[in-house]
Amino acid sequence: MAVAKLTEEERTIALGDLQGWSLASDRDAIERTFTFADFVEAFGFMTRVALLAEKADHHPEWSNVYNRVEIALTTHDADGLSQRDIDMAKSIDAL
Amino acid sequence: MAVAKLTEEERTIALGDLQGWSLASDRDAIERTFTFADFVEAFGFMTRVALLAEKADHHPEWSNVYNRVEIALTTHDADGLSQRDIDMAKSIDAL
Repeated sequence: MAVAKLTEEERTIALGDLQGWSLASDRDAIERTFTFADFVEAFGFMTRVALLAEKADHHPEWSNVYNRVEIALTTHDADGLSQRDIDMAKSIDAL
Repeated sequence: MAVAKLTEEERTIALGDLQGWSLASDRDAIERTFTFADFVEAFGFMTRVALLAEKADHHPEWSNVYNRVEIALTTHDADGLSQRDIDMAKSIDAL
C-alpha cells in the first residue's frame, strides 16, 4: 500500500508537536541527535529503537559514535516524510 | 596510555591481512560495508559488534540503513589508524 507524503499543513502541525526533531537540510526527512552517558547507554537505546522499528516495519537511518546516536526518519514508499515518520519519532521520544 | 599510530610498513602488512576493508578517502580510518538479508540480521550483527567493542573498549563509528551496516574504525588516541583497529576488524570479521 502506498503511503501518503505529508502535505505542507500536516507537516507544520506534526513538526510543531515534536520536540528536538528538525527537518534535514538535504532531503525530506526529520532528524534528531541523542546523547548518552556512554556507549552502553547509547547502544541500549538503539536496541530499544530497533525493536520498535522492526515491530512497526519502519526502520531508521542512523549512526552511532560512542555516546551519540543520530537518527533520520523518512518514508521511501512516500518519497518523503509521512505520518509513519512522525509516529516513529513520537515512539522513540517515549522510550 | 597513548596508542601508537601504525607506521606505513605496519599498515601495508595489516591491510594486506584484512579482507573487505579499505582505507577511508577522507581520514585515517578503515571502512567496510556489510550487507544482510534484512534489518533483523543487520541489527543482530550490530549487537554482536557492540559487545565486542565494549569488551575491547574500542568503539566503531557506524551507520545502519535497513539491511546495510557501514563500519569505520580509527583510534582517536592515536589520531589515526592503530593496531587496535586492525584487531577489532579481525574480531568483527570472525563473527
